Amino acid sequence: VIDSTKIASLRAAFQGRLITAPEEQAPFLFDWRKRWKGRALAVVQPDTAQDVASILRWCNATHTPIVPQGGNTGLVGASTPDPSGTAIVLSLARLNRVRSVDAINNTLVAEAGCILAQVQQTAAAHSRLFPLSLAAEGSCTIGGNLSTNAGGVQVLRYGNARELCLGLEVVTAQGELWDGLRGLRKDNTGYDLKHLFIGAEGTLGVITAASLKLFAQPAAQMTSLAALRSPTHALGLLTLAQKHLGPALTAFELMSRNCIELVLRHIPAAQDPFSAQHPHYVLLEASDAEGQDHAQARFEAMMHEALEAGLIDDAVVASSLQQSAHLWALRENITEAQAKEGKNIKHDISVPISAIDRFVEQTNATLEQRFPGIRMVVFGHLGDGNLHYNVSPAPGVDPEQFMQQEPEVNAVVYEAVARFSGSISAEHGIGLLKRDTNAALKSPVELALMQTIKRALDPLGLMNPGRVLPTAESLR
Amino acid sequence: VIDSTKIASLRAAFQGRLITAPEEQAPFLFDWRKRWKGRALAVVQPDTAQDVASILRWCNATHTPIVPQGGNTGLVGASTPDPSGTAIVLSLARLNRVRSVDAINNTLVAEAGCILAQVQQTAAAHSRLFPLSLAAEGSCTIGGNLSTNAGGVQVLRYGNARELCLGLEVVTAQGELWDGLRGLRKDNTGYDLKHLFIGAEGTLGVITAASLKLFAQPAAQMTSLAALRSPTHALGLLTLAQKHLGPALTAFELMSRNCIELVLRHIPAAQDPFSAQHPHYVLLEASDAEGQDHAQARFEAMMHEALEAGLIDDAVVASSLQQSAHLWALRENITEAQAKEGKNIKHDISVPISAIDRFVEQTNATLEQRFPGIRMVVFGHLGDGNLHYNVSPAPGVDPEQFMQQEPEVNAVVYEAVARFSGSISAEHGIGLLKRDTNAALKSPVELALMQTIKRALDPLGLMNPGRVLPTAESLR
Repeated sequence: VIDSTKIASLRAAFQGRLITAPEEQAPFLFDWRKRWKGRALAVVQPDTAQDVASILRWCNATHTPIVPQGGNTGLVGASTPDPSGTAIVLSLARLNRVRSVDAINNTLVAEAGCILAQVQQTAAAHSRLFPLSLAAEGSCTIGGNLSTNAGGVQVLRYGNARELCLGLEVVTAQGELWDGLRGLRKDNTGYDLKHLFIGAEGTLGVITAASLKLFAQPAAQMTSLAALRSPTHALGLLTLAQKHLGPALTAFELMSRNCIELVLRHIPAAQDPFSAQHPHYVLLEASDAEGQDHAQARFEAMMHEALEAGLIDDAVVASSLQQSAHLWALRENITEAQAKEGKNIKHDISVPISAIDRFVEQTNATLEQRFPGIRMVVFGHLGDGNLHYNVSPAPGVDPEQFMQQEPEVNAVVYEAVARFSGSISAEHGIGLLKRDTNAALKSPVELALMQTIKRALDPLGLMNPGRVLPTAESLR
Repeated sequence: VIDSTKIASLRAAFQGRLITAPEEQAPFLFDWRKRWKGRALAVVQPDTAQDVASILRWCNATHTPIVPQGGNTGLVGASTPDPSGTAIVLSLARLNRVRSVDAINNTLVAEAGCILAQVQQTAAAHSRLFPLSLAAEGSCTIGGNLSTNAGGVQVLRYGNARELCLGLEVVTAQGELWDGLRGLRKDNTGYDLKHLFIGAEGTLGVITAASLKLFAQPAAQMTSLAALRSPTHALGLLTLAQKHLGPALTAFELMSRNCIELVLRHIPAAQDPFSAQHPHYVLLEASDAEGQDHAQARFEAMMHEALEAGLIDDAVVASSLQQSAHLWALRENITEAQAKEGKNIKHDISVPISAIDRFVEQTNATLEQRFPGIRMVVFGHLGDGNLHYNVSPAPGVDPEQFMQQEPEVNAVVYEAVARFSGSISAEHGIGLLKRDTNAALKSPVELALMQTIKRALDPLGLMNPGRVLPTAESLR
């Protein structure tokens, strides 16, 4: 039952789109993997930050919960409403202007609803690089990237979304507009408020715009695939690559053999660049300020030293953009290939880089012993200590039956993560999916600090309730 | 009058050094520039984070204010007690262990009282670079560097102290120990609490240890001094250097001719490397992953292009470490030379890099018109948009009389900073010195957010009271 008086009052409160028809609301009510489906009082799509503020003031007056939503590409259930139908979904999609580009200051001010690819392209049009790059870049938004502190493939060199942000415009939970869009590299005039809202998944306020860092475009990019025996060898290669390339090393991605097998099986155009099979592979990317020849010479010198040192068993260096794209396709198609293979259990973990080989070795061994025949599909951003540590059922095992073992598999993985002082969510955030697991694993002091911040900034508990932190109700 | 019962109860509350004798307390009660001098109930020097926690619990029970102090090298009066004698000074000097170094993870865990140079040297002993570098590095501490979000000469490439920190150990205002010493590059499991304590100048809690980022050491470093006509030409050179060198550009420091004059006059060993005089100079440093020959070739190619483009009028590239040290000495001796010349009015401002030439041109013009004959001593981290925008009296003008005009000079400078959306404290922080000016310039929304955070984390108002934010009393 729609409360028509309430809807009328909401309609009067702001300019912009108000969606109440169920068929028009539908795309905003579930996530793209269809794991969570909810209901909403209404979906609102304002056009300006001022109207976001008006909406939040209305929500304060009426005690209406708010679920902010960007591109709705998240993986942890942080941007879909609960089934109660009491919340509004606040879609930032129409705040989609790049407000300014300053090529000398190397900054770009984008509204929250700008698609990541749009920001990359705008930077490129000014001969600048915006380095945030991830699978969903064609549909995810900058506001969502910042609210989840997105990672991706170039974090090794440029940092997470957090590190790419110089300033924010935010509407507070009380509906006040904070203009913190400073494009400054240095500013020590008080608490760094932007870092509170970045990564808070919309639970403390609504990001409406951001001042983003741009970089000089590299003159050339080189890609190489190295074949090697183990994650320990990959760590040795990483240290060597950092020594040789310094900040020119922009990607360092590990893949276990199972990943390549899946891609070769399910992705028609995929080809194994090596004639022999190898237990592990590392995809390296270097971004060079000089040019193609210099980049290639540096890469080949490094790979030669890695071969001599016994760190790698074979390597190919892409000599064309097309070859580079083929190598990247092996990495980028793993998730799709794994989906085609069938259901699987996913983890997005990080540990100190120096512990990643022991983490993989010990956790693989425990899982393979407990669940005979399971296939470890291990890949990810080794240079950041971040692995997508996925588990597929043994050949012939019913996937549905396997998925019932998810809690047991998770328990093994999360125990190992804790033992190595790691993180159970390196890139994807907490949302609803990992809320209770996270609360159980965090120290009471840290959890209490988080709750203190939440209560201080959102005393009515209206901002994306039940996400990131357990609510009083969910603890009962 | 010392409250001996209170002192006895404090003595019983923790292990470590307790200083009550006035002559032993003295060095902790004033800052090194002797601008602020206060009194303290006691100076405490615990040896462990657990004892810091014990002290803060005692302070909570007795409602005793705490003034945390590191190397006491700050410039804004953030680490000296007020004259009331009611606060304790909490010196972190004896928490001075490097707890661990992980050369593969590129991290180092240092306690708050570690001297910055000690951290740099420990990193170097493991063939790693800890890039934070500033004038006080021989006596400032990591805890202070983080509490003030220190800057320095390599921010352009490596970021401020904030960006060099992966995790913190903090004692909260309530005396609870939070272990957030994660050495992870990616961790999205809730609010990023470390960023609240970094730059908070001890007003929200006490940093007791930090997990710091290390980097591969460069194979070579090159220094060059370019002579040029104006800050606008310097901006052109910056864009060119970023294109040529990318992340290899590690310092880009502007100096006006007056700076060089002062150094040549007051520093005996100083020499002008050019035969002609030039209005401005830029000191550039490149850090190269390949070696000396490569670095020099890259540098010379860039300088050649800059000459061709008319961006610079002359340049010297250091061909030895000694030459490099001579060039750096011109930059590093400016502050000392200016002190020898006499009193002057200092500012630590930042603006968007693209606006820095207009800021200098317009503000110089206004000041020179209002205060005929004054000398602009403008230098600093142009690559970060951060200038030490200092003003010396006209030759022959009594320095004491000139200093009485400081409020008028500041008003001109801060109005210009605001007009260019800049910062009145780029590196040095707020403390007591800029507290009220900052409060007057910040937007009410931002100030209210800061006060909300302060009240939430330090409800009794015991943490470094009156610093950063005005207290209720100071507002009266």
